[in-house]
Amino acid sequence: MACYLDNSATTAVCPAAADKAFCVMTDVFGNPSSLHTLGVRAEEELTAARRAVASLLGLPDDAAAERTIVFTSGGTEANNLALLGGADAMRRRGKHIVTTAIEHPSVLEAAKELERQGFSVTFVPPDANGDIAAKAIADACREDTVLVSVMTVNNETGARLPINAISTLVRRTCPHALIHTDAVQAAGKLSLKPIVPHVDLISISGHKLHAPKGVGALYIRPGVRLTPRVFGGGQERGMRSGTESVPLIAAVGAAIGQLPSYQAQEERYRALEAQLLDGLKTVDGVTCHLPANKVPYIVNVSVAGLKSETLVHFLAARDIYVSAGSACAKGHESHVLQAMGLPKEAIGSALRISLSSQNTSDDIHTLITALRDAVNTLARADNHRKGGI
Amino acid sequence: MACYLDNSATTAVCPAAADKAFCVMTDVFGNPSSLHTLGVRAEEELTAARRAVASLLGLPDDAAAERTIVFTSGGTEANNLALLGGADAMRRRGKHIVTTAIEHPSVLEAAKELERQGFSVTFVPPDANGDIAAKAIADACREDTVLVSVMTVNNETGARLPINAISTLVRRTCPHALIHTDAVQAAGKLSLKPIVPHVDLISISGHKLHAPKGVGALYIRPGVRLTPRVFGGGQERGMRSGTESVPLIAAVGAAIGQLPSYQAQEERYRALEAQLLDGLKTVDGVTCHLPANKVPYIVNVSVAGLKSETLVHFLAARDIYVSAGSACAKGHESHVLQAMGLPKEAIGSALRISLSSQNTSDDIHTLITALRDAVNTLARADNHRKGGI
Repeated sequence: MACYLDNSATTAVCPAAADKAFCVMTDVFGNPSSLHTLGVRAEEELTAARRAVASLLGLPDDAAAERTIVFTSGGTEANNLALLGGADAMRRRGKHIVTTAIEHPSVLEAAKELERQGFSVTFVPPDANGDIAAKAIADACREDTVLVSVMTVNNETGARLPINAISTLVRRTCPHALIHTDAVQAAGKLSLKPIVPHVDLISISGHKLHAPKGVGALYIRPGVRLTPRVFGGGQERGMRSGTESVPLIAAVGAAIGQLPSYQAQEERYRALEAQLLDGLKTVDGVTCHLPANKVPYIVNVSVAGLKSETLVHFLAARDIYVSAGSACAKGHESHVLQAMGLPKEAIGSALRISLSSQNTSDDIHTLITALRDAVNTLARADNHRKGGI
Repeated sequence: MACYLDNSATTAVCPAAADKAFCVMTDVFGNPSSLHTLGVRAEEELTAARRAVASLLGLPDDAAAERTIVFTSGGTEANNLALLGGADAMRRRGKHIVTTAIEHPSVLEAAKELERQGFSVTFVPPDANGDIAAKAIADACREDTVLVSVMTVNNETGARLPINAISTLVRRTCPHALIHTDAVQAAGKLSLKPIVPHVDLISISGHKLHAPKGVGALYIRPGVRLTPRVFGGGQERGMRSGTESVPLIAAVGAAIGQLPSYQAQEERYRALEAQLLDGLKTVDGVTCHLPANKVPYIVNVSVAGLKSETLVHFLAARDIYVSAGSACAKGHESHVLQAMGLPKEAIGSALRISLSSQNTSDDIHTLITALRDAVNTLARADNHRKGGI
């Protein structure tokens, strides 16, 4: 049984979601835009899933809530729609965007695209721990700020950003600015209900909450206008054309239905995090990079003298899966740890351990044991090559 | 057993594709961007599917061919990337686009978005039969034409457009213009191999060839540059960011592997079309809208005095599925039949019958019998209401 501790990269599809996708593929293959019965059945699947996503956001089970959800092909497309579609719709009001230096590439690169389109963007840096204060975001806002995009939870350090405090301060100085949060690393693990009233746009991704890859959603607060990014048949109330991926959308609904309670998850993550941090103290050369305000299900560490990639492969050979920074970085140095001002060596030896509700105390034990082995084996080999012991 | 004759709207997912998607969801859930073994396995699934798509285009089974395929969330996104990404990359050369009045909404609306961005677009109309001559496209080209987008097969009438002749003429006057074809209604049913050398960009959609909804691909000829539309982690060689939908992409590969030979399909479609056209002659008030150059697997007809929607529901109640124009139009009048200059009444009573290789002679027989019933029952009811017999 694999010891999978890379849940911020992607999660295992839960059986209910895989079964649901399979049933829809085999039994409900109609095009939701078709007038006939097969189309109507497909449309019903979309509606049920839309209500499940609304419930994930703590919205009421009604048609109005349902209309706030636009399905996309994933978190990246949701973030792109929020930033590029949001900024474009606000273009006449101003051309300044505020975001952070630690966002996911799908926000950072969309922001850079906006710069190419003539917008100016302020990337607020984190402090040395990876935290960002609400005041730092508010101070970056100007009279012409039209969009503020701040992630709910950072995917590499687990830093939890103060979305509600940010919203309160930003609304005071820039009442017309759209506020977006990339909640991809929070959705399914933390209640988003307290955040929803404070923001205009929320991105989520299916494959981070045990649904398959290829589906995500953007919550759009009623009354908020975005310029669409994909043009065509006018699906998703004109916000995102293209035949909806009925099997994957239905699978998201099924996955949401299987999530353990937030309280049960919180307790489990807190216990596993405590075990992990205790265990890491017993491994030579480990430094933890811990934001003051963080979620318990992501822990970022550096192991002195060992390259991330070497460690990732060493662990994978033992059926233990973690990542070197984020999956998307694939071999590049972490922009998040760089923004925190970590020394080059610490960045090059960073490991991200990320949990799901399926992880157990045994998984943590297995990881710690393997990390101790790694330090002994790899460090010794390294010393040997250098002509040491 | 349903009599499904709406295969241009969407097709039934073939068992091999549904099984493949299910296996990938349950066994290969890694993120293809992850460094570790689970990521590598997911990446291998993408590679296999990419080669299957390349083979569908008649490209060799090698790494170079593989690099020409960019996976998207469907045909709509592929068409958007071709038009918006292609025109943007060519912006400095000129700002004129040529397309036809009978394209799918994902091309037409993308073209209209280009108009909003300052491009000028010529929409070449079809003749009364729905055909468009190569010369009509070439004549619309100007010195500043940078993109020509013409569909391979029209989704409503089955008109087959002369892509190679268009390419020859366009290359003569506008050698630098990008040539795109939306081959969504051709891929899997017709060999695209003869077309590939003549064009720069080809869109295909998974759910039109028995793969699930939510996946498509764009072929990009080596050397052609497009501006990406989705920004982020740089997946798909930077052309389309976002974690790839490994289950759906793998399912496309599986579906392609199950396609009957083009010759077998052609023979079957020709026989079924002949049976259909003969049968339709026995139904009162039927007019067929037949382009001179058409594929045999799409037939568009009008039934005098009966509204499309009424007929679609009448047939669906008998487990027979066809559409009123395209699925995307959903209640709107067909822009294709309008462009052909059909009378309003013929447009309002249009039905599209579209085949897959799974259809049989029995299906056609069932449809014709039901259509005869419809004309008798519905027309009689209508006459009765009007105070007739």
